[in-house]
Formats: sequence, structure tokens, C-alpha cells
Amino acid sequence: MFDYLSKSEGVSKAKLAAGVKDGSIVVVGNPRRRIRPLAVGAGCSTKVNANIGTSPGKSGFREELRKAGVAVDAGADALMELSVDGETERFRKLVIKRTKVPLGTVPIYQVYSRRRLDFTLEDYLGEVEKQCREGVDFMTIHAGLTLEGVRHAKRRIIPITSRGGCFIASWMMRNKAENPLYDGFDSIMDVLAEYDVTVSLGDALRPGCLHDATDKAQLHELKVLGKLTRRARERGVKVIVEGPGHVPLDQIEYNMKLEKRICHNAPFYVLGPLVTDIGVGHDHITSAIGGAVAGMYGADFLCYVTPSEHIGLPDADDVREGVIASKIAAHAADVVKLGRRGRDDMMSRARRRLDWDAMFRLALDKDVGKLRGKHVLGGECSMCGKYCALKTFDECLDA
Amino acid sequence: MFDYLSKSEGVSKAKLAAGVKDGSIVVVGNPRRRIRPLAVGAGCSTKVNANIGTSPGKSGFREELRKAGVAVDAGADALMELSVDGETERFRKLVIKRTKVPLGTVPIYQVYSRRRLDFTLEDYLGEVEKQCREGVDFMTIHAGLTLEGVRHAKRRIIPITSRGGCFIASWMMRNKAENPLYDGFDSIMDVLAEYDVTVSLGDALRPGCLHDATDKAQLHELKVLGKLTRRARERGVKVIVEGPGHVPLDQIEYNMKLEKRICHNAPFYVLGPLVTDIGVGHDHITSAIGGAVAGMYGADFLCYVTPSEHIGLPDADDVREGVIASKIAAHAADVVKLGRRGRDDMMSRARRRLDWDAMFRLALDKDVGKLRGKHVLGGECSMCGKYCALKTFDECLDA
Repeated sequence: MFDYLSKSEGVSKAKLAAGVKDGSIVVVGNPRRRIRPLAVGAGCSTKVNANIGTSPGKSGFREELRKAGVAVDAGADALMELSVDGETERFRKLVIKRTKVPLGTVPIYQVYSRRRLDFTLEDYLGEVEKQCREGVDFMTIHAGLTLEGVRHAKRRIIPITSRGGCFIASWMMRNKAENPLYDGFDSIMDVLAEYDVTVSLGDALRPGCLHDATDKAQLHELKVLGKLTRRARERGVKVIVEGPGHVPLDQIEYNMKLEKRICHNAPFYVLGPLVTDIGVGHDHITSAIGGAVAGMYGADFLCYVTPSEHIGLPDADDVREGVIASKIAAHAADVVKLGRRGRDDMMSRARRRLDWDAMFRLALDKDVGKLRGKHVLGGECSMCGKYCALKTFDECLDA
Repeated sequence: MFDYLSKSEGVSKAKLAAGVKDGSIVVVGNPRRRIRPLAVGAGCSTKVNANIGTSPGKSGFREELRKAGVAVDAGADALMELSVDGETERFRKLVIKRTKVPLGTVPIYQVYSRRRLDFTLEDYLGEVEKQCREGVDFMTIHAGLTLEGVRHAKRRIIPITSRGGCFIASWMMRNKAENPLYDGFDSIMDVLAEYDVTVSLGDALRPGCLHDATDKAQLHELKVLGKLTRRARERGVKVIVEGPGHVPLDQIEYNMKLEKRICHNAPFYVLGPLVTDIGVGHDHITSAIGGAVAGMYGADFLCYVTPSEHIGLPDADDVREGVIASKIAAHAADVVKLGRRGRDDMMSRARRRLDWDAMFRLALDKDVGKLRGKHVLGGECSMCGKYCALKTFDECLDA
């Protein structure tokens, strides 16, 4: 395994082994699935996740499977299956069978969908174990939400934007009791450890708007996640920590460094972050901005956001746009975080010699060549035509 | 004038007057045109420019005028007319007549188009004066390029990506002489001063790829621009300074602060910056990332980049996407630079109460409401439907 990862990541086997040992690198992959493992964490390239999921009466199996294919084809390193209703088990099994990248889930969705607010820790454990057996590679567990966290959240503009977090908070408010996933954390970890499945510690209180960023609720939960990181590791579970969300540009660096410090350098998996709340219809861009800066300051794993975020289910085009935007952000971060500028320099050399074949081959979006007919006309691009700066310069150099 | 600007910028008249006096704020607007003046600089909101321009046999008057309309409608604060060939004068006059935002040009384009490398300083002065009379509001003058700069540029992967810079460098190499715009700088400034037209000091050596960013060539030219800033101001000309280009994420802060220091706090007008070279087909995203970070660290004016950058002429949809991406970047910067989070908070409150009308009204893209039919189904959005986190939470709060 380290042979393959060392090569794909460009990191020595010793460094990988050390990172895995101290938890700063997590190798995601359920041993029951025959897929290539994915290294997430310090020194590894910044990874991108794409969300899929069926909605009854809105998007069916075939369409969501197609989106999964589009996402992976565009470069997604992992998928999360976020169906909440309908035949989610059948769909999940199909995705596991048909795709070759790590798959993550949020088990509380299925538990809530079946039992609503009557679910128990036992229901939850059963669901987690079932999904481990099926081959799910990583699971979001919202164990960091506590009664204190819910109290803090009530002071926000948007108390809880995390759907899973909301189901649990609702359970807690109705039952006037502590989060069963927090109380039962060790037993949940024991199941994951048995199947060697990665936990992604969910941030139920991730800020849902700039106003709520880096507030008491978020920081309280982060502290809890730090403690849970240690407890999970002690039980032999690989830990990723989830993070915001909506964060103003100037708070991103602080957020990234804080997570690494409080959560014992666990890989950080962020959603966005979105740097403004008013980008509706273009939130793949607001989150690419935040994702690039987050990646530069240490985020290891970016969850994509599509242009449809905040308005509805993404279609296949949205999925593609979302993945590409996140891949751009991840690469822009890796250029500075890991010094990975090689492909950029090859592109620049291709531009210098007006080598259009090479330019389209080196593009991050491998399908961008489809635009070629629209723009490139016999050696000249339609932008400058005979007024090409590079050609004019060369002619004078040669003269 | 200060009444209007003080209101639109949310800056006191005294602060505006002080900024205008010390040159950290420039009010763009040719007195011969009856348009609202545009304040660019310290303490003002980050502005966005969109480029248009005809290409013979490729895009005609009507199409380019339509793009100008699309750009302004999407929120562009200024336009640059970058035609190099054909009936550029007629087109420029049409744009001046039909649009209501400041218009910038690059006079060397017309001079080169007419005279190729046989142009003289007199040709150039004549063109500048003609355009001043027509009502052009700001002009890019590539006076900072020197023989020393050209020597440095030869060591790059992409020596010169600026088209205007390239024409001038070619002239210099052919004539083995100093840049006529550098030599004749004072006389050019005297023309601009006479017509109260703003100079945008062009960066002929802006890096065309990450490899060349913040290199000797760029820094040499920036130093020259610093001196020219002072000389232009001494002759009564309002100065904006142009900047990169392609810049790795971790060099953006340095670049912004350096310009302010070396160019005596002149407003900084950047193209992008693009944070990777391999985003072909999606460079509105690579440049929104760079533009947001640049804006946060002091850039005052962002030139948009469209998805077609590096492959060809943008169509109207590309223009729209490019403007929106830059507006998102500018706003994300203003949220932190100027504390302008008001609209974001209104949006967040609208989200909290699931007020779709308000959400679409507050969106930065005012046309995003067109997507409404696709996604929002009777009060519920197609994303979560009955599993809406906010609704679930509210029901428990109310219980």
C-alpha cells in the first residue's frame, strides 16, 4: 500500500508511515472494498470530495449514479452518498459496486429517515455496522455536538445548518438529554475499529453564515472534537475532522491552524469555506476562494460546493463545475503548500511555444479540449489573432 | 461630486477629499462625459472592470456592444475597450455614447494597428489627445517598460504576456532604443492633465505564469512605475497602477503591500491574479481566488478574467460569468477590508426564515432568480425537501 501511495503522493514511504502513525495522515479505504487507498493529510496533495444522493421524486438512481461518474471523471478523489430517504441501502450498494473511489456516508441520515426522533444509540450502532460491512470507507459521525453547543447555537443567525447535526440537536431538545453519539462514542469507535473504517468527526455546528463564523458554538464543538480525536485514536480508529462552512477570508488561516493544534494534527476536511453569503448560484466560486486559502493554510480535504448550493439539487453539469472549482482550489493550494508547480510550468512552456495540443493536454479540466473548435483557429487563438504578443516578440527577437 | 461618492462609497467627504489629495483615491471620469464618477482606492469598495473589443471577422460592433451591456448589467464598474484592428474609433465612440460607466483604453493598440513598428512618440501623443477629446476616462500607458526590463524579461518562461507591452518591447528591440513612452512620459502626462484623464500605469512585464511571478523583470518595472507615479502626480495627473497577472497564492500579500509602498499608495489595479496556470476554461475561478486575496490585502480594482481566457474571445455568457466571479472576489475582500457584511447578514436572516423572495433579491447575481423554477418547489428547496435542517430545528424549538 505504501508503495503505491508513496508514488502517487510523491512522499517517501518513511514519511507516510510516520504520518500514519502519528495520525497526521489517514489512509482512507475499507479493507472489504478493492479500491485504491486514499492518503489524506499533512504532506499529501489536497483532496476533493463530491456529494451525491437520491431524493425521492426528484433524482433517481440512474441520474445520481451518472453524477457520481461525472464527479470522478472530473477528478473527485472521494464521494459522499447523502441520500436521506427512499431505497438508500440499495443505492449505496450500487455506488460501492460501480465506483472506485472511497465512499463516505452520514449514518444518522438513514437512522433518522427510518426512526425519526425515536432513534436510539442501538439503532445507530446497527446502521454503522451494516454500512461498515457493505464497504463504506468513511463515515461522518456528529459526536461533537453537546447540550452546551446547542445552547450556544441558539444565539446565532442560523443555529445549525448541518442536516445531521440538526437531527441530533432536535433529538436532544426533545429528549432533554445529551447527544447519544457523544455518550456512546466509544462503542461507535469500537465498531469502526473492527472494520478499519475511518471516522470523519462531523462539525454539527459549522457556521452557516459569515456572521456565525468562529463563534462560541463552533469553537466549543472544535474543543470537543479535539478530545474525541484522541479517544478515537486510542481505540485504533483513523480520524479526520470536519470544518467550516462559511468563513470570512481573514479568519481562514486562524481556523486552519486552530484545528491542527486542538485536534492533534488530524487531517482537516472543510466544506468550502464560503467567503461570502451572497454568491447564490455561484457558490462553487465563493467556496473555491475559501478552499484555496484553507488548503494553503493546512486543510487537507475539500468538500466541493456546486453552483446549486443554497438553491437546490445540483444536476450533472453543476457536479462537474463544482468538482473542477474545488480541484482548482486544491491545486492552487498545493502549488504553495507542497511546491507542486511542475504542471503549471509545463503549461507555461507550452504557451510560450503556442503548442495548443500540449496546452489542452496539461489543463486541469481534461475535457476543456472540447472548447477548442470554438476558439482556436489554425494555430492562432481567436483572442489576439495576428496581434499575438508572443509571436510579435519572437519576430523581433529573431530579427 | 463628493456628495454622491460619499453616499455611494459610505466614506465621509473629508476622508474622500484627503484620499484624493494624497493620491490614495482616484476619481475616474473624463469631464467631457456625463457619467457618474468612480472612486477607486483606499477605503472605497473594490471595483471590477470588464474588457470588450471587436476583432475583425470574429466579433462585430453589435456583439461587442451587447457584451458591454451584459457586463454593466452584471455589475461591472468600468469597461476597457481593447479593439486592436478595424474601425476601432467608430466603435469606441459608440461605447462612450451608449454606456454609463468609465471607459478605459490602451492607445498603443490603435497606434500599432495603424503604424506597426514605425510609430513615433508624436503618433502616440496624437492618439492619446484624440481619445481624451472623445471622452475616454482612463488610459493604460506602458511607460514603465525600459531596456533593462526587456533584458530581464528574456530570462522568463513567458517574456511578455502584455500585448501593449509586447508591441513596445518589439519597437525597442528593433530600434535599439529606449521606450518612447518612457522617454516622452512628461509630454504624455501633460495631455492627460489638460483633459483631466486618469493614467493607468501599465505593467508591460506583468508575469504571464506562476514561474515568472515576483521576478526581477516585474520588480524592476514596479520601481520605475513608482517613480512615474510621482512624476505624473507632479504634473496634475490622477494615477492608478496596474499589477499582475499570474501569482502563486502565497506571494499575493507581498505583491499588494509592495505596490502600495513603492507606488506611494496609488490605487492598485490587478488582472486576476491567477493562482494556477492550468485552469484553462475556468480562469474566472483561478482569478477570483487571486482577486479576493489581492483585494483583502489592498488591491482596489480587479480586471475580470473570463472562462475563455487563454483560449479565445469570450462570448456574452463568458463575459457575464467573468464579471460575476470578479464581483464575488471583490465583495469577499470588502467583507474583511471594509467590514461590509451587511448584505451577507441580511441574506443569512432571509435563509433562517426560508424567505426565498428575499434570498433571490439579496443575491449578488440579480438574475439568479431565473434558476428559481428549477430548484425551489413551493416553499421547500429541492435540496433537502422535507428534511430541511432549519425546519426540523424550529419544530423542536417550538415544541
